[in-house]
Amino acid sequence: MSTTTTGSAARRAHESRVLAALRDGPLSRAELARRVGLSRTTLSETTAELLRRGAVVVVDTDAATRRGSGRPAERLALDPGSGQYLGVDFGHRRVRAAVADAARETVASGVEHYDDDTPWPRRLDLAFRLVDRLAREHGLHFGELQAVGIGVVGPYGGWRVDSKQVSWARRSAPHDVHGAFAERFGAPVVVDNNTRLAALAEAVSQPEGATDLLYVRLSDGVGGGLVVCGRIGTGAHGFAGELGHINVDPAGSRCRCGKRGCLETVASAPAVLAACRARGVEVTTLDDLAAVVATSDPVVEAVLRDVGAAVGRVLSTAALTLDPDEIVIGGEIVHVAPVIVEQAAATLRYELHPLPTDEPLVVRAGRLRDTDGALGALAAAFHLSPLLAGYPQPEAADGDADLRGTLRTPMPALHARLRRAL
Amino acid sequence: MSTTTTGSAARRAHESRVLAALRDGPLSRAELARRVGLSRTTLSETTAELLRRGAVVVVDTDAATRRGSGRPAERLALDPGSGQYLGVDFGHRRVRAAVADAARETVASGVEHYDDDTPWPRRLDLAFRLVDRLAREHGLHFGELQAVGIGVVGPYGGWRVDSKQVSWARRSAPHDVHGAFAERFGAPVVVDNNTRLAALAEAVSQPEGATDLLYVRLSDGVGGGLVVCGRIGTGAHGFAGELGHINVDPAGSRCRCGKRGCLETVASAPAVLAACRARGVEVTTLDDLAAVVATSDPVVEAVLRDVGAAVGRVLSTAALTLDPDEIVIGGEIVHVAPVIVEQAAATLRYELHPLPTDEPLVVRAGRLRDTDGALGALAAAFHLSPLLAGYPQPEAADGDADLRGTLRTPMPALHARLRRAL
Repeated sequence: MSTTTTGSAARRAHESRVLAALRDGPLSRAELARRVGLSRTTLSETTAELLRRGAVVVVDTDAATRRGSGRPAERLALDPGSGQYLGVDFGHRRVRAAVADAARETVASGVEHYDDDTPWPRRLDLAFRLVDRLAREHGLHFGELQAVGIGVVGPYGGWRVDSKQVSWARRSAPHDVHGAFAERFGAPVVVDNNTRLAALAEAVSQPEGATDLLYVRLSDGVGGGLVVCGRIGTGAHGFAGELGHINVDPAGSRCRCGKRGCLETVASAPAVLAACRARGVEVTTLDDLAAVVATSDPVVEAVLRDVGAAVGRVLSTAALTLDPDEIVIGGEIVHVAPVIVEQAAATLRYELHPLPTDEPLVVRAGRLRDTDGALGALAAAFHLSPLLAGYPQPEAADGDADLRGTLRTPMPALHARLRRAL
Repeated sequence: MSTTTTGSAARRAHESRVLAALRDGPLSRAELARRVGLSRTTLSETTAELLRRGAVVVVDTDAATRRGSGRPAERLALDPGSGQYLGVDFGHRRVRAAVADAARETVASGVEHYDDDTPWPRRLDLAFRLVDRLAREHGLHFGELQAVGIGVVGPYGGWRVDSKQVSWARRSAPHDVHGAFAERFGAPVVVDNNTRLAALAEAVSQPEGATDLLYVRLSDGVGGGLVVCGRIGTGAHGFAGELGHINVDPAGSRCRCGKRGCLETVASAPAVLAACRARGVEVTTLDDLAAVVATSDPVVEAVLRDVGAAVGRVLSTAALTLDPDEIVIGGEIVHVAPVIVEQAAATLRYELHPLPTDEPLVVRAGRLRDTDGALGALAAAFHLSPLLAGYPQPEAADGDADLRGTLRTPMPALHARLRRAL
């Protein structure tokens, strides 16, 4: 696996054009030249480099049938065995990686588990081993990667540095993640909240794409993501979509964020399991829950309906704010307990019923299950979707310790503004 | 006042370039030609038309000092007495109009009052008379207007047609408004929710502009507006920003939207006055309220703090969803009772305190008071702000009865999508 440093942005752009042209099928050099509009010299240099790295291979030479002494009519094609993009999703308890080839098709995906309190060096090591294993098992050879997308747990993710919990924007871990991957693979890296990346993956998972999508994920934590006006919404400081910390019960349990009664204290997978246990139903895993749900246990049904109603109330406030055309509820638990989605949809139907629209709002469970974050990280690495207009390009490590710099385009300086501090 | 029909979009675009060039000061025809980059013929036709309409005047001819027989060195300048843009804000009980000249400076503004149940023909008549009066009082002459922006009350506005209350998207009134203004002024018209336009006005009222702004207006009703990723957010069906109908009290009063305990039932100006009266404080107008607030009446103070807390809770859910850098609370009542903004800011401070950011969120009262909607309508008519990327251009009446067509760019066809109806 290459560890050379990144080439120029221009070279990568040329490579992208050549690779994009070859996605439709093999092309002769002459056909390629017409399609990509690069100078003869640039095209020649670009294809030579792609051939050297194995991203592109020569196919269909007509040497066997050719008459005369002309140069062989080579055709160039993408090598499906070449890993070109890497998407990595670091969750609370596992890292998932997905690899896409030059044609941007996912060619491998895998997972490694760890404990919630595993320190970052160990998480990184597990991720690198996972990528090595995927390469071995799937017969992949990595040329120089085009880009790496990485999802990390959001602002309340409980990042630990020196055994202290540090805050999201100030933590050093994500910079280490960015730097570690940039160094390991010599490729541009983009890092973002993994739930936002999951929202991106759900939005691009349908042919037409969604222009206004609201996404919430019920997992070890509860997070969300937005597509607004056909663009991934990050917010002013990278915190857009923090639906898990909207209050649903003023007198509720203490949340790890420090507030009380956040949606996460009610609708995260551990909170749902705990609520079942508090009602005397012994479940410790989602598999246990699935078994009880299969019996139509009325106590569990009531617990799950309460969870769905809380999710629906929070989604209603977000939907009245944003007016999405689609709402997606993700996380393994919604597949184990679909009544959560049904009840959330019913609550949304009530809260939005006065809105006069002929187009019924779509409310559905996530399609992508546990791969959503890694696929979204890949999508961010491709940086091709119009959803990513204004979203940062993957970039090489530059020593910027502030994650926000990788989350959004630079903002106008705000400090000079006369403001009334909160 | 001209009632001729609109010229071509190209002609208007040429005129816009000439007018924009002249905003910095008078220019000779030669200087103008260099600045606008139009062909000699097109420039000549364009300036002739602008001179004919009085939008542009000739200044500084050097006939008095010129020697020889050459053509006079005319310079062209904007005519500050020429009304070029009209912004109109139809509220529940008044219409406000503002006029901007070719340099996009507001040159006149005025208001006419009516009852909440005034039918639309009468409202239109009052608006047209108001515009005539402004022209008379301010010595304005209207050439052919460049564009008209119009704000109307949002989805819960209680539009009445044939003495029945009709829903927002299906009502015929806004189309009448669009058509009536297009016919009366022979100009392109853009219509939108007046609260969204007020948000636009607040966002453009500061030199740097806001990239992520959340706006709520406490008025006869309660509405909101968004700037997301540096663009005005309309949502998928034009309903984005309906903060007034987020639930704040499940067992609360019936709202005119049909639900219970919406923010509007607690924080609209009439609701606040009613809450004071229910506590034995006889106030029927905002002036009455101002007088009681001046005495620091503790009962009224408690009522207002409850209102501010409810506003703050709703803004918190929206802020956790959107992560804005600025929150603006508008409406006359926040100037009469600033404690509402103070309490809302305190509630927001609590709900957002776990978010690790060095940039304190700005929470402030609206700057623009009652002119906000009309100024936002003007801004929409200018269609110059980058906030309006993707927002519809003003357009001539075309018989499209569906307001949504004027609210957002066309969406990809969604009907074919496999969907789970709400």
